[in-house]
Amino acid sequence: MKLYIAPRAPNPRRVQMFMAEKGITDIPQVAVDLNAGEHRSDAFRAKSPLAKVPALEFDDGRVLTETRAICTWLEGRYPEPNLMGVDYDERAFIEMADRRIEFYLMAPLANCIRHTHPGLAVLEQPQFPDYGRSQAAKGYEVARWLDAQLARQPFMAGDRFTIADITAFCGLEFARGLMKFKPGDEGMTALQTWRDRIAERPSARV
Amino acid sequence: MKLYIAPRAPNPRRVQMFMAEKGITDIPQVAVDLNAGEHRSDAFRAKSPLAKVPALEFDDGRVLTETRAICTWLEGRYPEPNLMGVDYDERAFIEMADRRIEFYLMAPLANCIRHTHPGLAVLEQPQFPDYGRSQAAKGYEVARWLDAQLARQPFMAGDRFTIADITAFCGLEFARGLMKFKPGDEGMTALQTWRDRIAERPSARV
Repeated sequence: MKLYIAPRAPNPRRVQMFMAEKGITDIPQVAVDLNAGEHRSDAFRAKSPLAKVPALEFDDGRVLTETRAICTWLEGRYPEPNLMGVDYDERAFIEMADRRIEFYLMAPLANCIRHTHPGLAVLEQPQFPDYGRSQAAKGYEVARWLDAQLARQPFMAGDRFTIADITAFCGLEFARGLMKFKPGDEGMTALQTWRDRIAERPSARV
Repeated sequence: MKLYIAPRAPNPRRVQMFMAEKGITDIPQVAVDLNAGEHRSDAFRAKSPLAKVPALEFDDGRVLTETRAICTWLEGRYPEPNLMGVDYDERAFIEMADRRIEFYLMAPLANCIRHTHPGLAVLEQPQFPDYGRSQAAKGYEVARWLDAQLARQPFMAGDRFTIADITAFCGLEFARGLMKFKPGDEGMTALQTWRDRIAERPSARV
């Protein structure tokens, strides 16, 4: 088995952090150079036809892509510690929290970066800077809602660490690097406190 | 229990079609008027804080939002017929197929519609028409890839009907109504044949 990743990209990092939380160390990682367009090569598209990382290649030749789908597989194969819900009821509510963060926080911030940052022009053509800036505003609005949530509960999905914290952390760290977005600077103190607490976990170092 | 939907919106339709496939008839549906802004009212935000439909309200007061999370819950409560995978391996590969369709087909087509269609201006402010048109091109490219897939396999995730077919069908029907997108007109005959076959299922009438 092999996991194809891209250094500094937030989606592969979500899988890497998920694996670190579970103590999975026996899956070798192979870096794909996005800036050089390696993900669009015929060789990589033979594995991941839509040119996406991360991708998990099995020894039988099958390849699983899509961050959360890879985590679903890993959760089944390596059940402990549970990160996605122990029964269908908890699984559904954690999936809700994870999707809210992925769609309404991470995606808008990533779209802002992809459409406004010169360093991402090679990955996003054409760029629409005005659209990108409008997305930042939408992401900030959801960040403020999460800040209010975290004033009442310790983790993104409630009272324990889950995949939703991983998605939020990797999304916010990407925005910290490329948008200089720091929740504390915007008065979002609960979100900043949560971020600093997650950053202390060994899995945050991947 | 109550399911909040919005007539003609593709995401609530995914849940409605999912329920129809399972023969779930005991959950009353309540329509929310998006054009009148009812989803942004304080009353609805008390249930769905990010103003999203669909939303599944439980008798104990909890509310579950996010289309796929609602399906995860329904799949647990009403397991037959299975639409999301019988074990973690199948569940992961179906999730991959579902996410590919949701992110790279349905979302780009919906973004095109939301950013270019005058009728959607009330829901998407500001609209960025050039961005919208670029998204249509990305969606069409993935539709062509799915067309090639469906020349080799009968359903979106492989050899049986799953949630991925529901996501693709509801996304394409939305694009058919508001973009006049018909795969057959673009030479995508396998995708058109698949669409016409799914349209014959009783669940497609919701």
